[in-house]
Amino acid sequence: MTDTAPAPSRRRENTRTRLMDAAAEMFAEVGIDAASVEAVCERAGFTRGAFYSNFASKEELFLALCARSAETTIAAVRDRVTSIEDRGLDVTGEVLHLVQEVLEIAGDDRLDILLGAEIRVQALRNPEFAAAYLSSNAALAESVTQLVSDIARARGLSLRVPASVATEVLLSAWVATAETAIMTRQTAAESRAHLGERLEQLVRLIVE
Amino acid sequence: MTDTAPAPSRRRENTRTRLMDAAAEMFAEVGIDAASVEAVCERAGFTRGAFYSNFASKEELFLALCARSAETTIAAVRDRVTSIEDRGLDVTGEVLHLVQEVLEIAGDDRLDILLGAEIRVQALRNPEFAAAYLSSNAALAESVTQLVSDIARARGLSLRVPASVATEVLLSAWVATAETAIMTRQTAAESRAHLGERLEQLVRLIVE
Repeated sequence: MTDTAPAPSRRRENTRTRLMDAAAEMFAEVGIDAASVEAVCERAGFTRGAFYSNFASKEELFLALCARSAETTIAAVRDRVTSIEDRGLDVTGEVLHLVQEVLEIAGDDRLDILLGAEIRVQALRNPEFAAAYLSSNAALAESVTQLVSDIARARGLSLRVPASVATEVLLSAWVATAETAIMTRQTAAESRAHLGERLEQLVRLIVE
Repeated sequence: MTDTAPAPSRRRENTRTRLMDAAAEMFAEVGIDAASVEAVCERAGFTRGAFYSNFASKEELFLALCARSAETTIAAVRDRVTSIEDRGLDVTGEVLHLVQEVLEIAGDDRLDILLGAEIRVQALRNPEFAAAYLSSNAALAESVTQLVSDIARARGLSLRVPASVATEVLLSAWVATAETAIMTRQTAAESRAHLGERLEQLVRLIVE
């Protein structure tokens, strides 16, 4: 083995990641039903053999994508929180800015929003997908709720509803605003501006 | 013509309606891509000839369904408003109840919620569907905004955000709550109770 060749487990992980990336694009663009295993393999540059040595089925890959999608957002939220803690919490008016910053994650990424919509519609149809979606979504909601509580406590703010309800309101408005931005073909800058404006209104509603 | 046979235009309207009903079920259950014109015709009990004398394509039928879906909800909202006006607006605490009642429309109808999710995901992918969805949705939002403004004015309530923003917050939370009810397989009674609870929290946020 040369020193540039990845170890088998690393190579396997790369294959898995590339198959998931290709599938995420196709599921977002055309939906899980229209995206065949063959087409996913072709886009990823692998054989069907490579596919089936990583995933038992297209459905298993879809479940892995649900989990990865939520984990990515949760990790991004945690990164933002760390950067917030590093900067301290003593600047006036910062709370609005912070929540906006956190919820703007992925807000201009068309494929992520499309994949999210595809995951939700499939979860509505299929109980197994629903269980996976609800579990990933609960982890995300918990992570954002913790952030909302931490910010409120650090700033001495009182919330007019429980932090978990505030989070659900913020997340559902965030999804609706991001979807509208795609349908109205807003640029990334326009989309970010609209999202910021909506989040500011919501934060004013939620904070006493 | 006997007196029980419908006139041609009435019969044509019946055919169109039955094709749309069958397509709405199939688009909700399996998505527009997986629902072939043949399968829609079979479910509706018509030939392909009957289909193509009513719709140029499956896409045209889908656009007609987008419009009908919004019109049905708008009509239901207007009916509720009329019944509210008939009852007068002088009962204490009625505002919560009224908004809940209006937004509970179709809240326990699984197929309507699924069709809505399918319409949104297709609108995210296809600019022509997006235009139709945005136009139907704008009409619905306008109708609910009018209702929110009317109730606020009649009851002398002040809203903490413009009525149009309150409406968007209510509608996006309504969709998210109704979708969660389906994924967690709540009974109609459970779903209605959760929706009522969430709407009550939102109304408390929105009203000064």
